[in-house]
Amino acid sequence: MLDTLQPLCSRLDPKSVSFDAGEIAPHIQDWRAQYRGSSPVLFKPSTLDEVREIVRFCNTHAIAILPQSGNTGLVGGSTPQGEVLLSLKRMNQVRDVDPDNDSLTVEAGCILESVQERAREAGRLFPLSLGAQGSAMIGGLISTNAGGVHVLRYGMMRDLVLGLEAVLPDGRVISDLSGLRKNNTGYDLKQLFIGAEGTLGVITAATLKLFPRPVSTAVAIAAVHSPRDAVSLLSLMKSATGGSVAAFELMSERALSFAIEHVPGLRQPVETPSPWYVLIEITSGEAERAPVLMESALETAFERELVQDAAISQSQAQAESFWLLRESIPEGEKAHGKAAKHDVSVPVSRMPDFMEEATQKAEALIDGAMIVAFGHVGDGNVHFNLARKAPGAEADFLTAAKPASALIYDLVDKYGGSISAEHGIGVLKQDELAARKPVQVSVMRQIKAALDPHSIMNPRILLGPERGS
Amino acid sequence: MLDTLQPLCSRLDPKSVSFDAGEIAPHIQDWRAQYRGSSPVLFKPSTLDEVREIVRFCNTHAIAILPQSGNTGLVGGSTPQGEVLLSLKRMNQVRDVDPDNDSLTVEAGCILESVQERAREAGRLFPLSLGAQGSAMIGGLISTNAGGVHVLRYGMMRDLVLGLEAVLPDGRVISDLSGLRKNNTGYDLKQLFIGAEGTLGVITAATLKLFPRPVSTAVAIAAVHSPRDAVSLLSLMKSATGGSVAAFELMSERALSFAIEHVPGLRQPVETPSPWYVLIEITSGEAERAPVLMESALETAFERELVQDAAISQSQAQAESFWLLRESIPEGEKAHGKAAKHDVSVPVSRMPDFMEEATQKAEALIDGAMIVAFGHVGDGNVHFNLARKAPGAEADFLTAAKPASALIYDLVDKYGGSISAEHGIGVLKQDELAARKPVQVSVMRQIKAALDPHSIMNPRILLGPERGS
Repeated sequence: MLDTLQPLCSRLDPKSVSFDAGEIAPHIQDWRAQYRGSSPVLFKPSTLDEVREIVRFCNTHAIAILPQSGNTGLVGGSTPQGEVLLSLKRMNQVRDVDPDNDSLTVEAGCILESVQERAREAGRLFPLSLGAQGSAMIGGLISTNAGGVHVLRYGMMRDLVLGLEAVLPDGRVISDLSGLRKNNTGYDLKQLFIGAEGTLGVITAATLKLFPRPVSTAVAIAAVHSPRDAVSLLSLMKSATGGSVAAFELMSERALSFAIEHVPGLRQPVETPSPWYVLIEITSGEAERAPVLMESALETAFERELVQDAAISQSQAQAESFWLLRESIPEGEKAHGKAAKHDVSVPVSRMPDFMEEATQKAEALIDGAMIVAFGHVGDGNVHFNLARKAPGAEADFLTAAKPASALIYDLVDKYGGSISAEHGIGVLKQDELAARKPVQVSVMRQIKAALDPHSIMNPRILLGPERGS
Repeated sequence: MLDTLQPLCSRLDPKSVSFDAGEIAPHIQDWRAQYRGSSPVLFKPSTLDEVREIVRFCNTHAIAILPQSGNTGLVGGSTPQGEVLLSLKRMNQVRDVDPDNDSLTVEAGCILESVQERAREAGRLFPLSLGAQGSAMIGGLISTNAGGVHVLRYGMMRDLVLGLEAVLPDGRVISDLSGLRKNNTGYDLKQLFIGAEGTLGVITAATLKLFPRPVSTAVAIAAVHSPRDAVSLLSLMKSATGGSVAAFELMSERALSFAIEHVPGLRQPVETPSPWYVLIEITSGEAERAPVLMESALETAFERELVQDAAISQSQAQAESFWLLRESIPEGEKAHGKAAKHDVSVPVSRMPDFMEEATQKAEALIDGAMIVAFGHVGDGNVHFNLARKAPGAEADFLTAAKPASALIYDLVDKYGGSISAEHGIGVLKQDELAARKPVQVSVMRQIKAALDPHSIMNPRILLGPERGS
């Protein structure tokens, strides 16, 4: 392989190629150390032309490429197994900020937090917000159609992309970075690359939507009886606040207690013990409006007995401490021990029935296990994880829990849901996807074959090799 | 052809096939009578299975299909030239209304107005709103990614589709009608069909997003000096109202005077004569809030001299009369005489420069012609039409105006815009698209060839036959 790559390497800027094992090391395993792999070379181009040269060369020689940006994925999609690594980290320029068009154009290697910061400097909001925002880069966030905590109000990454620049496997470039809101000129090709997990080409830059910054924000944590009441509360909050709900996160008592038990400095947010809590964020473009809306909506919710207790943040610091509770759940969960994780979605209206049936059946199936549920219930997305009640051997538990995953995915199908709400397919869920969506997968394969006939772009990821019949 | 079709026709329900010239007549010309064509047969299936049977048969025999719903397009995309007609008008069931999921599932032949009505009955809003809503059907609105007057707040049709049911050229069905907000399981295949103008398959049903109904609405017409001031005013209104601007329509004095002159019952909305006007709609989820927001924002705009005069609606009837002014412009324009029409978009921030340069150059180029501009400036979309100043022979004028179209499209390119903001390509703009976006068109052709190898789906539309090199 290295001999074959030699002509390419000698043509590139020396800064754009590395064979250094120390430099390559962090790129060949994921941040949770669940996947480890290898790569003969790390390409780190800094220009579109270099990306084109690398991709064209690999296409000619049928060499598989794994494109990588922040390497913060959860499904094994960015760990190479012998593919050449194409890191976008040096393509990290902000090309344009256009507040009057509410848009900004950045390269794929820009870190999410820095993009949020550039939007802030322009007096605007870039609303994508998630745990990994200090490392996750725009290219990967688009390739995985990232979600996060503000989807309810602003949508997924797909909804935030106005245009893309992408290199196709044969080196052609699709570029549409002018920030148009309306453009009906045939197939919206950028949509294909969003969520394609790098299997159709390399995203090199994107024009993203900006929004007015909220002027006032209120965060509350409320105790509710059940997921059903949470869904009713969401509906009430949406209409009572005129659509100002920016986030609505459900947490089971178990999920919250893992966080409080294992993460220092956290404490119970409301006095009334409750099996379920929701974190609600209201934002408004008017000064001092959000707390008023929050209080009046929660008052109605108390009257209708949808809420048993609630704490509304009285300061920015308190608002952040409420968010910290929600964001510490994965860490608390990890400290408790490994769990069988399921990032699933169902229609919001069917969420309560799904959760009830799935919890009861999964806990009945697996001895000594319990469901830990939390997530973006406003989007119909719940992280529905099976953890052991008492300490024990982790590997044994994960093996024992396997039948519960099949059961949970079957119930997701029954309720018209998705086996991957926001984390994607990667290598982790390929078999499930192929088994549950055969028509879709066959159409995806036709599209991939048309645009990437030598299958050089992330060939093991998402679709993987064709299954035997 | 009829002999070939015979086995298919005899298998279908007799109600699903027609050879009656009288019944076929309205389907073979467009509503503006700009395009006339022919078809040997009208298929009008009422079930998914019938659609599959027709499509599969045509695929086997390489017979071209033109799918049609409301036939209200503006670019010749729904007039057959010998293709078999596949009308979706009998597939008009509302399959499901789910207010708790803010979604509704309807078949392709449902008329937009009836969908709005069903949403209203469920206490929700389906926000797509456009002139042809009494005839336009969901299938066509999705296939052309329809826009309209509320794109600024709610997005294009693409943003309103949660899932599709579509028949592929080989008869396979892609179906995803469960109304999920989040579903990261590979390529988002529905995106391919949205805006594809029927070239990849037949859309048979869709799950659409619903929204809370606004509780208060205020409409104003304001006199402004220039498109530049209009763009600044939009920015001010957006931030001063906390993102509550639902519509923001620019009208030149000429455009408005055509409406007032030719449509009975209309009158000047504000006393101060002005070269430009904007129609602003503010909506709020809170009672009586919209007029308050409108007044306070316009007050700031007066202080900053962005607005010279304004009238705020004092009743629902007055709000409707303001909208009627805007909506009567195409009728007034038509009464004035044929015009060379351009439905274009540029980034909102570049709209003022584009309009200034394009107006000056087009009017200098074509003797006796003037630009009539109006449209959805909040989305960067302007209907930028060239009309004659004085009466004269229409055909001569349209011929004489041709160089202006090339000039306008060249300037659209210069400003990073689109030659079709919302009307699509159809047959009207194929040559322009092929010339201006060769890479995109070649990628579209690859995708079409992969999914429709016999090119049976609307083969003349959008892409058309391959151009010689």
